[in-house]
Amino acid sequence: MSANLRATVKRRSSARTRVPVEPKRRELSLEKVLAALADPTRLGMVQYLADAGDKVNCQECSCPDRAKSTMAHHFKVLREAGVLGSRESGTQLFNHLRRADLDARFPGLLDAILKSAPKPTW
Amino acid sequence: MSANLRATVKRRSSARTRVPVEPKRRELSLEKVLAALADPTRLGMVQYLADAGDKVNCQECSCPDRAKSTMAHHFKVLREAGVLGSRESGTQLFNHLRRADLDARFPGLLDAILKSAPKPTW
Repeated sequence: MSANLRATVKRRSSARTRVPVEPKRRELSLEKVLAALADPTRLGMVQYLADAGDKVNCQECSCPDRAKSTMAHHFKVLREAGVLGSRESGTQLFNHLRRADLDARFPGLLDAILKSAPKPTW
Repeated sequence: MSANLRATVKRRSSARTRVPVEPKRRELSLEKVLAALADPTRLGMVQYLADAGDKVNCQECSCPDRAKSTMAHHFKVLREAGVLGSRESGTQLFNHLRRADLDARFPGLLDAILKSAPKPTW
């Protein structure tokens, strides 16, 4: 294997492991979704993604007064609860709201939360 | 003051301080309500109270496989978030779901949660 090919494989496999494991629709838990949304920053992120409509890059959804690592943690909590889904594109991770899955498992919940959540200021 | 009267006053004032402070309708916070409901036991308690329709004594809503102190903690979390209200009657504390307040502040939220929450087994 050439040095170039080895580097490519290494890059690809590390990129692959970056994509976090997300619960399937049937594995979504109401308690975990509620816990993930019980935070003003995460509520703001979900509102931002709901308004953005489609996939959003992690950096676009960053809050100016919060550290990158803090935002990464919040993204992780939302992904692990199944509120957000992620898709890799090149070196970037794009996020989307799992609206269809959430609406199928917990009808009306996301809409009720989005309607009542204060608008994010960022 | 007779010994009997002193005892009565003492009992009354200690009973009065038992009634916990509950947030007013305008003070209800979405994050706090979601956090309070992000627990299977508390979700079960709220379902029980929603089905019971009216006021329920703390003891009636106890779960056989959980300690009394654990249940008291769960009641406290729900009361402090404004999900439950309490009313003293004699020496007992009766709880009720603050449905009108929750529906006014977060329309559709409680119904969506109650519809999706697994039924309590106790």
